[in-house]
Amino acid sequence: MMQRIHDPERRDFASDNYSGIHPEVLAALAEANGGHQVAYGEDEYTARLREVVRDRFGEQADVWPMFNGTGANVVALQSMLPRWGAVICADTAHIHVDEGGAPEKSAGIKLLPVSTPDGKLTAELIDEEAWGWGFEHRAQPRVVCLTESTELGTLYTPEEIRTITGHAHDRGMSVFMDGARLANAAAALGLPLRAFTTDAGVDVLSLGGTKNGALAAEAVVTLNPDAADGLIYLRKHQMQLASKMRFVSAQLLALYDGDLHLRLAGHANAMARRLADAVAAGIRDGSLPGVELTQTTQVNAVFATLPTGVADRLRRRFRFYDWDEARGEVRWVCSFDTTEQDVDAFVAALRSELAEP
Amino acid sequence: MMQRIHDPERRDFASDNYSGIHPEVLAALAEANGGHQVAYGEDEYTARLREVVRDRFGEQADVWPMFNGTGANVVALQSMLPRWGAVICADTAHIHVDEGGAPEKSAGIKLLPVSTPDGKLTAELIDEEAWGWGFEHRAQPRVVCLTESTELGTLYTPEEIRTITGHAHDRGMSVFMDGARLANAAAALGLPLRAFTTDAGVDVLSLGGTKNGALAAEAVVTLNPDAADGLIYLRKHQMQLASKMRFVSAQLLALYDGDLHLRLAGHANAMARRLADAVAAGIRDGSLPGVELTQTTQVNAVFATLPTGVADRLRRRFRFYDWDEARGEVRWVCSFDTTEQDVDAFVAALRSELAEP
Amino acid sequence: MMQRIHDPERRDFASDNYSGIHPEVLAALAEANGGHQVAYGEDEYTARLREVVRDRFGEQADVWPMFNGTGANVVALQSMLPRWGAVICADTAHIHVDEGGAPEKSAGIKLLPVSTPDGKLTAELIDEEAWGWGFEHRAQPRVVCLTESTELGTLYTPEEIRTITGHAHDRGMSVFMDGARLANAAAALGLPLRAFTTDAGVDVLSLGGTKNGALAAEAVVTLNPDAADGLIYLRKHQMQLASKMRFVSAQLLALYDGDLHLRLAGHANAMARRLADAVAAGIRDGSLPGVELTQTTQVNAVFATLPTGVADRLRRRFRFYDWDEARGEVRWVCSFDTTEQDVDAFVAALRSELAEP
Amino acid sequence: MMQRIHDPERRDFASDNYSGIHPEVLAALAEANGGHQVAYGEDEYTARLREVVRDRFGEQADVWPMFNGTGANVVALQSMLPRWGAVICADTAHIHVDEGGAPEKSAGIKLLPVSTPDGKLTAELIDEEAWGWGFEHRAQPRVVCLTESTELGTLYTPEEIRTITGHAHDRGMSVFMDGARLANAAAALGLPLRAFTTDAGVDVLSLGGTKNGALAAEAVVTLNPDAADGLIYLRKHQMQLASKMRFVSAQLLALYDGDLHLRLAGHANAMARRLADAVAAGIRDGSLPGVELTQTTQVNAVFATLPTGVADRLRRRFRFYDWDEARGEVRWVCSFDTTEQDVDAFVAALRSELAEP
Repeated sequence: MMQRIHDPERRDFASDNYSGIHPEVLAALAEANGGHQVAYGEDEYTARLREVVRDRFGEQADVWPMFNGTGANVVALQSMLPRWGAVICADTAHIHVDEGGAPEKSAGIKLLPVSTPDGKLTAELIDEEAWGWGFEHRAQPRVVCLTESTELGTLYTPEEIRTITGHAHDRGMSVFMDGARLANAAAALGLPLRAFTTDAGVDVLSLGGTKNGALAAEAVVTLNPDAADGLIYLRKHQMQLASKMRFVSAQLLALYDGDLHLRLAGHANAMARRLADAVAAGIRDGSLPGVELTQTTQVNAVFATLPTGVADRLRRRFRFYDWDEARGEVRWVCSFDTTEQDVDAFVAALRSELAEP
Repeated sequence: MMQRIHDPERRDFASDNYSGIHPEVLAALAEANGGHQVAYGEDEYTARLREVVRDRFGEQADVWPMFNGTGANVVALQSMLPRWGAVICADTAHIHVDEGGAPEKSAGIKLLPVSTPDGKLTAELIDEEAWGWGFEHRAQPRVVCLTESTELGTLYTPEEIRTITGHAHDRGMSVFMDGARLANAAAALGLPLRAFTTDAGVDVLSLGGTKNGALAAEAVVTLNPDAADGLIYLRKHQMQLASKMRFVSAQLLALYDGDLHLRLAGHANAMARRLADAVAAGIRDGSLPGVELTQTTQVNAVFATLPTGVADRLRRRFRFYDWDEARGEVRWVCSFDTTEQDVDAFVAALRSELAEP
Repeated sequence: MMQRIHDPERRDFASDNYSGIHPEVLAALAEANGGHQVAYGEDEYTARLREVVRDRFGEQADVWPMFNGTGANVVALQSMLPRWGAVICADTAHIHVDEGGAPEKSAGIKLLPVSTPDGKLTAELIDEEAWGWGFEHRAQPRVVCLTESTELGTLYTPEEIRTITGHAHDRGMSVFMDGARLANAAAALGLPLRAFTTDAGVDVLSLGGTKNGALAAEAVVTLNPDAADGLIYLRKHQMQLASKMRFVSAQLLALYDGDLHLRLAGHANAMARRLADAVAAGIRDGSLPGVELTQTTQVNAVFATLPTGVADRLRRRFRFYDWDEARGEVRWVCSFDTTEQDVDAFVAALRSELAEP
Repeated sequence: MMQRIHDPERRDFASDNYSGIHPEVLAALAEANGGHQVAYGEDEYTARLREVVRDRFGEQADVWPMFNGTGANVVALQSMLPRWGAVICADTAHIHVDEGGAPEKSAGIKLLPVSTPDGKLTAELIDEEAWGWGFEHRAQPRVVCLTESTELGTLYTPEEIRTITGHAHDRGMSVFMDGARLANAAAALGLPLRAFTTDAGVDVLSLGGTKNGALAAEAVVTLNPDAADGLIYLRKHQMQLASKMRFVSAQLLALYDGDLHLRLAGHANAMARRLADAVAAGIRDGSLPGVELTQTTQVNAVFATLPTGVADRLRRRFRFYDWDEARGEVRWVCSFDTTEQDVDAFVAALRSELAEP
């Protein structure tokens, strides 16, 4: 029997994928276990997931479980694009900066990144790259990629999304939403999933599970069936087809067939809120000298700049990542299992590191 | 809470990935759960897996956990090849016939398939395609791909493997082993894993978990560190990098840090042996008229031809796949959870379908 | 001024691309020269070429000039296939054995090669690989690739082509014809180009110029406009778009707007006929002991086996290539500029090499 | 015989690839014609070209003739990069904006574009994207791409190039120079080719012929033999290998084995100088109201903004392209065959269009 060799009490602020599996998700794996089920997606849990996705996102929706977020994003984009297509995205988009070139290297997709102040595209920003259709010398802009919630912990409102999808559709482009943290957005907006996806004109999205208490479970969800082609084949040759798919689907069912996704994401958001509030208070009262918050905390991440050297000292107690090393900016992420005590201990540690130079 | 919606007592003979998760593997997921672990492979379970792999395959070995077999095979081959490289394989190889063109489409790899009687390459068969080095008009043969055990349920002996690796190395080619069922081979050969891999000159292999009781866990294992390059980057942009890697590694630890892999694969092999023996006996005594066994059963699969119509009738009770529809050939696969009663019931069903036309 | 540094009297039997530019093609370059013409295909010569192609191949035809045969073949196939598509071809097809893996490596195309006796596919041979539509584990067979005339110097009749295209279309596949030597076929068949292409159900073809007296000029010709998509974009990003396209089109006009293509190819065919006849006579009368002709000579190539050592000795006087080194088989190719004296001198040299061991 | 169907007296200011073939280049094709030469680069003209390139660029240099600039750039970059590599370039670089996504789509190369005021990178600008080595989530920056002269008609000095190559080399990156207009740079700098390439630390470059009087002739030139790998194979499977290569090499010999490249590029530069001077004078004396020059004219292109509507009216007489439609910016390019009369007529036309609203 494999033995535990790690410290199950340790919690960091590095990423929501440092955390493990929520007990209800683990229980779902056990429920789905036993006996034989048809492989590669013809099992009963994947069928049930399809029903749940239709219930959440509308009757036209369909779902394609995959292993990870890079896979879901790249396979979705490829299904939405001709071979000569390009994607307009924020230059902070995960597909541009954090997937090792997967869109270009495994799918031949050209990205057209646009600089933004807060990780959010607008119609005006999109227009910087939305041109040249029919001109063979230009990879053809055919998809706009939004991340909801964004890589900078910010949120699009449903109205903002609707403006963008209308703008894109008017120009013959479709809209993909990277929803690795879609549940965090739903919890923060206090709206049903379809209110800021299907009903806001999004065509295809990736639905995240892993950052929100799953082991490894993501899915492509098509909202507009005409916007994607060949997902069944692309998922296979892009190596994202799970043979024992029932267990990927079971994780997503544990999260989305009920409100677990909202409970977990809402908790992570609240912990980030607590952290941001404590830091803001410390800035105001002078107990956190030299610290600045650099983005509005709308979901489960807090961005701040620290005086030189503080980040490295603080990391001896809690792991977290630099965001923009040149500016001294760091990112702190809360997870479904972050506790109030964790947040308070972290702020105390920050305070003490700032005090002793 | 997600509820069970499937029949946990049903078992088929379709594939070893119709089965679920072995209880010890599921327990390992629970052990590895809780607290935070560094994502993307710097966790303690992946570190431990590296030790286990070195213990099993030799001090030079290293391990790269991935999601599925297609991913492990394609990423391994890509790491072994220059962009202009080609792979010599049997024309029954999984990479050629069952991966949706993944080697070509996601990695730009040219395959040079060779026809074999039993799924096994030989030096002579390799030489049909092993030529043209330095000739720019030919994709350069640089890797020979063996599957152990093969897609036809047959086995290479260590001597056969050694002959092939020597032949390949003499010609500047390296040798990859598709080990999706490596444990079945080890159990059948009664030899340590390294005896027919590292010690037989294999350079890189994929190590299977999923078909042998894991949820989703495979790995690339490099035996010769000079034979592969860039696995760290390729795994990422080929979308095979698990964020919560501790759980992929934990599954492989459950199987390979101890003898669970042998117990499970050995059991599956024994069940296939029982099935093949029963069919052979039925052929001899006339109770299974018109049935023929078409391959030697060396691991957990049985290949047979059936009279017209019998396969479809039998499938109303047990699922299994056609292998070569034109010849009426079918494949029956046993799994870690196949019981003696399952086998006996299957043979009885076959007998009764043959009796009533 | 660049000076001549080669021997303009030397002629070999190695390949039709050892020869140079026919004077009428060179003259066409001079005619098309001078002044400014819109780049990238909006020039007057490309417009005229479109008219000529429609006249030759039918009103639905369109033409896409490219640099070389590999480019024309790969871009055409890619335009005919979804990303998950595969191509059934003879295992002697140029796309499989002579393009350095370009279909796989630059276009992600899976080839399904079939063994043939004479380089020619049949409906039965196609069916060896024409299966598995809708099955995600198999790259989807969507195109059948014929070469006319074949890489073995043989010819499909219009009836044979019609049988194959009907068979393919019935199964939802389209048909591509590699026409690097289409003019040789037209000359040998004594038929208009469209009789064995458009009228025989071919969907898309590559039209060769380079092997028949051009400098570098090939084209994709679409006969069925529904069978190809995105050629305008694929040609660009596959690096086959000539900026000064007027000169590529002018070469093709020199050949195909008139009968130059037939005159040149017919001459090359006749020289191969002369060579094959002389060799056959020498075999019969015993003056060419140990020589055998291995394929019927229908166009401009002769295939033969020679006694050991003879090929290398003969190559000291005339260059030519081994075809199948293991069998001692060689290929001799005639070109538009091969003379009767060249053929006679070659046969005499062969005779003398056979005489002196 | 193909007849002339275009107006050989028309000249535009659209692009240097609107022009035709210089008579000395056409003469070189005739010189290289006749008889048989080994195909695919083993001919005598390609051998001679190698000598010339070594003479011009240094003893370590080697040359790989190709069909077009996109091909030369993409094949060169691919030969310089591992599969996981990325290229830092200006966001105006031809490889980013004018090659239809060829780097991404046909070679899987990730581009990291950087905004510049004048098309020129600096060490500081490079550093915006030069980071993350060893971090698997980031495509690895391994090549810096300069264009000399730039797409904005500006020039790097040898000192600027040396600073950049030193900076890149210190960080483990190599340097590629897009030399589609390298001759224009040489003429403008008044320096031998090697002074601002080999001697300035450039590793690999593309050497342009087509924009400077050739029919279709470009080449990859490796200056540092360790900086590129597999060009012989990549050129083939990227479909850039000319069978009758002698004629591509002959064009490059006509230009570079002697001073024709300098004479032609120097003339084009002088015509652009004349145009820019005339426009500047007209701006000063009020005869060209509302016109502004937007880049320094250092080679053969002039960039200007025009009052609304003027560009379209002027295009009824002379073709040229918008550069930045939103700003009303246009680009005027001079060619080897542009005359002083052409320039004067163009300025007169501009003046008259500005006069009549």
